[in-house]
Amino acid sequence: MKSTASSIPPERSTALLTDKYELTMLQAALADGTADRQVTFEVFSRRLPNERRYGVVAGTARVLHAVKDFTFTAEQLADLDFLDQRTRDFLASYRFTGQIDGYREGELYFPHSPLLTVRGTFAECVVLETVILSIMNADSAVASAAARMVTAADGRPIIEMGSRRTHEYAAVTASRAAYLAGFSATSNLEAAFRYGIPASGTSAHAWTLLHINEDGTPNEAAAFRSQVDQLGAETTLLVDTYDIARGVETAIEVAGTDLGGVRIDSGDLGVLARQVRKQLDDLGAHNTKIVVSSDLDEFTIAGLRGEPVDVFGVGTSVVTGSGAPTAGLVYKLVEVDGHPVAKRSRNKASHGGTKKAVRTHRSTGTAIEEIVYPYHSERPDTGKLATLDLTIPLMRDGQAVDGLPTLEQSRSYLADQLVTLPWEGLALSRDEPVLHTRFTGFPA
Amino acid sequence: MKSTASSIPPERSTALLTDKYELTMLQAALADGTADRQVTFEVFSRRLPNERRYGVVAGTARVLHAVKDFTFTAEQLADLDFLDQRTRDFLASYRFTGQIDGYREGELYFPHSPLLTVRGTFAECVVLETVILSIMNADSAVASAAARMVTAADGRPIIEMGSRRTHEYAAVTASRAAYLAGFSATSNLEAAFRYGIPASGTSAHAWTLLHINEDGTPNEAAAFRSQVDQLGAETTLLVDTYDIARGVETAIEVAGTDLGGVRIDSGDLGVLARQVRKQLDDLGAHNTKIVVSSDLDEFTIAGLRGEPVDVFGVGTSVVTGSGAPTAGLVYKLVEVDGHPVAKRSRNKASHGGTKKAVRTHRSTGTAIEEIVYPYHSERPDTGKLATLDLTIPLMRDGQAVDGLPTLEQSRSYLADQLVTLPWEGLALSRDEPVLHTRFTGFPA
Repeated sequence: MKSTASSIPPERSTALLTDKYELTMLQAALADGTADRQVTFEVFSRRLPNERRYGVVAGTARVLHAVKDFTFTAEQLADLDFLDQRTRDFLASYRFTGQIDGYREGELYFPHSPLLTVRGTFAECVVLETVILSIMNADSAVASAAARMVTAADGRPIIEMGSRRTHEYAAVTASRAAYLAGFSATSNLEAAFRYGIPASGTSAHAWTLLHINEDGTPNEAAAFRSQVDQLGAETTLLVDTYDIARGVETAIEVAGTDLGGVRIDSGDLGVLARQVRKQLDDLGAHNTKIVVSSDLDEFTIAGLRGEPVDVFGVGTSVVTGSGAPTAGLVYKLVEVDGHPVAKRSRNKASHGGTKKAVRTHRSTGTAIEEIVYPYHSERPDTGKLATLDLTIPLMRDGQAVDGLPTLEQSRSYLADQLVTLPWEGLALSRDEPVLHTRFTGFPA
Repeated sequence: MKSTASSIPPERSTALLTDKYELTMLQAALADGTADRQVTFEVFSRRLPNERRYGVVAGTARVLHAVKDFTFTAEQLADLDFLDQRTRDFLASYRFTGQIDGYREGELYFPHSPLLTVRGTFAECVVLETVILSIMNADSAVASAAARMVTAADGRPIIEMGSRRTHEYAAVTASRAAYLAGFSATSNLEAAFRYGIPASGTSAHAWTLLHINEDGTPNEAAAFRSQVDQLGAETTLLVDTYDIARGVETAIEVAGTDLGGVRIDSGDLGVLARQVRKQLDDLGAHNTKIVVSSDLDEFTIAGLRGEPVDVFGVGTSVVTGSGAPTAGLVYKLVEVDGHPVAKRSRNKASHGGTKKAVRTHRSTGTAIEEIVYPYHSERPDTGKLATLDLTIPLMRDGQAVDGLPTLEQSRSYLADQLVTLPWEGLALSRDEPVLHTRFTGFPA
């Protein structure tokens, strides 16, 4: 399969993927003169969902596209009849012309890491809140869950096959986020074409059920034979429609011992994998792989680590963030005309001011902490510690900067970063974030 | 705000919102002669997530659109180079020409209720699996959660404001599903325009934080005054940016006792609502409403039922299905050339054959059970019981039938159906499905 851009849907305005209050605030700001104040909005999380140890940034590249496409059509403006003419005129010529900095896609993050920093006038920045958060919350939720699954699979490939369990377009970007996090392939064709992700898939239970004799009795062999005729012996046959042992026997009879794989999609997968491996080996099919699926998540994958499973297929849990379907990121005003600002109600403390961050590492490469400092200050002195700049320029004067990482590069980057976590950071159990985020250089 | 269709994005093919295995099965079926077998696929759930008592069907109208738009462009076909020429030729002229029956949008459902029944050739039905399930799983998850929130709110309006917590297009359809389930309004402008849902929203904390004096000190009064100038005294002011009691005082000073509402978005909402109600009443603002938001779900809404809260704003929990982000619906082959078929592995038993369903009611209107029977059989004799046909025609020969319910009609329908549940069905606690689905007329 080629990876082209040809199936990308027509470009369309992202401007109404917006909460109404952003436009009512805009109108009031244009009226009272605050629209032109130079501000900073920041995307960050207050905590990691489900007491996870780390999060994975995803969606940044999609955010930059969405900001570029955030322009109002004449039809959209005509519909915005709750706004005054001045506001509609402003929106008619709206283009974001500000600056965006942030963490790379595939970067690790922790509570209060400044993931994205959007600078410009209040008017141009406030309207981007919803679309930026929608993208980053959805993509980071999937990537954060998927990275744990990749760790649990311990080098064995995982195929993303969860499209059917989430919104039809969320499925496409979930595939992307899972791939970013280290999944090997996707079932989703739109994702394959749009993002160049390897596509995977052979057959469903329906295929076996379709093959009945004239009297309605099952004919699993006919289904297998037809599949092998079309897709070759390297295909994967689904063996659990009727009886698994019979299914495996039939599969090897039909395809021979060069059969690529068998898939098991139900039952006690560990027990079945052992039985099927023994049966395959006894039949001489030593190279036939065992693919398992059926409501797997990071915990069940880890539980299968000692079993003869070659490939995992993961659906529901990855596209729904495995218990955390949103990353819980917020977009908060942190600076106005050079003054740090922050909400002061209890339980929602924020740190005011525009920020950058670095991460320090021991000589062994193990990460120590994140240090957050004022954007226009010198990088803090970290002595002899290896120090990684986490904040990079993403957009300048409304244009995406050149040379941003590709999806493949971000995927490699994350793999490299995961290795830097202290060992307890890769544990699946609930605990505190594995790295602390320390603030320095801010007023007390 | 007008409700027009003008902001609907350009129609686009849904054909690649598809798992690869559907097309490899298609190729093999075209090769082995099974492509033309007359089949039935059925959408159903094996269980209700989180031991809920009932589910709500949503997405049906979107499914019918997606089926109509399931056509392959020349560019898409060129990309499908893993398929042989015969299969690509088939797809080039693909139009679904079959029959779809199913439950109405807004209908209640239970495990094994036959929610959607798709009939046609194997070739034309198999390729629709992913897009149908994506839509129904996403929309039904949101509607099922939202209906519980509406029950918990006990007549008080709920505004959907969760767009930022889910994929940017999932947000739009989540707004639709929440409205279907009885929410009153949405923050999402695309949903407002696309589906005619009332839009709602005034201001965020950023608005208050933007209004600082030249020395950087807060000026909440300036923010409130500007908002009231633009949106009128009927607006809702967000009073918890700094100190809530001071915020309420300032709000009434600025807007007068005709202020429409105040919003509290943090803290112990029950305690704060009581304090704020007393303060508003003491200030003479008896008609100023109290809007609360801040990670509400059906349980926290129920906990606030005794408090002086007038309007609820719900975000994350509704768009993520409140702990059940997917409805877990499956699309299974149940009949081939008149023969019922079903997978036989343990724990995934299905009922073969094409089905219809009715629901019986006592003379009081309370629902008793669902009865599922073979599609071509007579409706079962339910004696004197009031009996509702649950299965209605949705598509005939590839065309949506005339007169299907509008979103408003489906919303009213659900409200009427919820009243028919036995009282325990509306409880929020975990338990069995409140109605049983009984199968009659099928071979044992």
